[in-house]
Amino acid sequence: MRRAVALASRGLGSTSPNPVVGCVVLDASGHEVGAGWHERAGGPHAEVHALRQAGVLARGGTAYVTLEPCNHTGRTGPCAQALIEAGIARVVYAVGDPDPQATGGAATLRAAGVEVTAGVLEAEAEAGNAAWLTSVRLGRPYVLWKYAATLDGRVAAQDGTSRWISSPESRADVHRLRAEADAVVVGSGTARADDPHLAVRGIEGAVQPLRVVVDTGATAVRPGARVLDDAAPTLIAVAEDAAPDLPGTDVVRLPRAGGGLSVPALLAALHERGVRSVLLEGGPALAGSFVAAGAVDKVVGYLAPVLLGAGPAALAGAGITTLTDALRLEITETARTGPDLRITAVPATPKER
Amino acid sequence: MRRAVALASRGLGSTSPNPVVGCVVLDASGHEVGAGWHERAGGPHAEVHALRQAGVLARGGTAYVTLEPCNHTGRTGPCAQALIEAGIARVVYAVGDPDPQATGGAATLRAAGVEVTAGVLEAEAEAGNAAWLTSVRLGRPYVLWKYAATLDGRVAAQDGTSRWISSPESRADVHRLRAEADAVVVGSGTARADDPHLAVRGIEGAVQPLRVVVDTGATAVRPGARVLDDAAPTLIAVAEDAAPDLPGTDVVRLPRAGGGLSVPALLAALHERGVRSVLLEGGPALAGSFVAAGAVDKVVGYLAPVLLGAGPAALAGAGITTLTDALRLEITETARTGPDLRITAVPATPKER
Repeated sequence: MRRAVALASRGLGSTSPNPVVGCVVLDASGHEVGAGWHERAGGPHAEVHALRQAGVLARGGTAYVTLEPCNHTGRTGPCAQALIEAGIARVVYAVGDPDPQATGGAATLRAAGVEVTAGVLEAEAEAGNAAWLTSVRLGRPYVLWKYAATLDGRVAAQDGTSRWISSPESRADVHRLRAEADAVVVGSGTARADDPHLAVRGIEGAVQPLRVVVDTGATAVRPGARVLDDAAPTLIAVAEDAAPDLPGTDVVRLPRAGGGLSVPALLAALHERGVRSVLLEGGPALAGSFVAAGAVDKVVGYLAPVLLGAGPAALAGAGITTLTDALRLEITETARTGPDLRITAVPATPKER
Repeated sequence: MRRAVALASRGLGSTSPNPVVGCVVLDASGHEVGAGWHERAGGPHAEVHALRQAGVLARGGTAYVTLEPCNHTGRTGPCAQALIEAGIARVVYAVGDPDPQATGGAATLRAAGVEVTAGVLEAEAEAGNAAWLTSVRLGRPYVLWKYAATLDGRVAAQDGTSRWISSPESRADVHRLRAEADAVVVGSGTARADDPHLAVRGIEGAVQPLRVVVDTGATAVRPGARVLDDAAPTLIAVAEDAAPDLPGTDVVRLPRAGGGLSVPALLAALHERGVRSVLLEGGPALAGSFVAAGAVDKVVGYLAPVLLGAGPAALAGAGITTLTDALRLEITETARTGPDLRITAVPATPKER
């Protein structure tokens, strides 16, 4: 199963709106005869890849799969049926499928006489599929907020200079995060200050994320902006009463809320477009509106060993005025990226504090 | 020598104005027959402890010592002479003594026919003695700035609440830092907001540091303040023109500079009192004045996995307005203290950036 979880992760960033799934097939005597992962939406599921490889050797064998085999016919046939037809005797899966359209695979398998074991390495498989599982359960994309700041929490100096606070290694790592996300979101402040490109560079075979600029007043993204080139698809989110002058650009109109756009409305619009994971790249005000909306599922901070003593902070306007209302997280990983320190954290569950 | 370096560290916080020193004596056949460290100023030096333990077995043996044996008679006799009298045949030391009063030990030993080897494990021994070596070289105490902040760099919420941003484990770790320092320094803002005690708690046998409050206007520390109890000595630093009303309290008058007191004058006054290492405990404005004065030798940040989005930052008023003028550091250690992350960093030497 550990191998299946590892295989699944190869699909990160290219399977939306589908989950990442890995599958390993053993023959009746326990030898691996097939392995596969879900590579892209619309393409064969992990089980189908693995069964094809196994061929007749699958008969009487065992399939290890990270997610309960699906039970519905979408762009591909149901995997539960494919496993039955291949003569698999036993299916071991990690995580039950929470998608109401696809669930029921285990029951179908059992009804066909296949031995089914659930919950093996469930936590690892859950973590690998966190974005998709969260999006199915909450009905909105999974949001990873990424920031780069000095040790004293500044994202720019007093005069606005911010290139480069973090190291080349940290910036390369951000391209990996972009490649794993379905959409990258920035606000009008970042669009105006940095004219960012937001596409993935330096990662071969990466699927480009949807580039999203939250430009409430429709004043920050002008024709010729780098984000409007054809390196990746782009969506500009503006207020319902704004008048964007961006012919040929995909624009979505959303209700205003608290000085910007409604975060739930933005996430609903993205979810509707098949976006299951969002990389929120700042700035402070946009991140604050996501924190205030309770819509941050993971935080990745790149801390550069630099002190400034002045300049904007990484997060602003989160609506928190006193310490007891602070957003408490749990650090899940720390790693060096060049001279910087990368800190990964997720919201702490209430019982943990 | 590694053992000698480890022995030396046991003296941290209790030897000032002397260095920490460790010594291991081997007999002529290479067996350890004595070990010791410098335990407190005025007490026997490390070599004397080790030689006493070795007795006649030191004859023809080797002494490993972390610092060049001293050559001068202070409150104790010169160690170079003691090693010669004990019949030591070979002395191996890590770091040369930069103190003009005490240097020359190696030459004295060689003149007496003792074989001398210098520079063994020099970097490790330097690091262990960083505070004392810095103070001898710069003529001011070594300054370690400690802060505790949220992931977004805040030291308090918007309403001023700050108890407790960091965990009990982090706060216990700060008592270790206090125990290793000769003085603990805070500013008037911290004195007013927190009425801190600043003494070491929870560490058996710890030597209490000098508690120093920078109270420029002589308005923050009032009679009855916790820092004025008899748990540890206390010094209040005020401006030359201030009128402190603190009978029985040790007060030093210093020139004003940039809204507070002159940092070099403060450090000179502390150095004169035998303080070789300072733990700077904040707040943001005091830390900023030390950064602006180029007087921060090490930074220890306790980052709590908490987001606030508002409130004061860890560092303010450092006189840095643009990114190229930022204070660049190098991270030397990261460790978990409970749920928090402790980051240790030292100023980067220019060649490294």
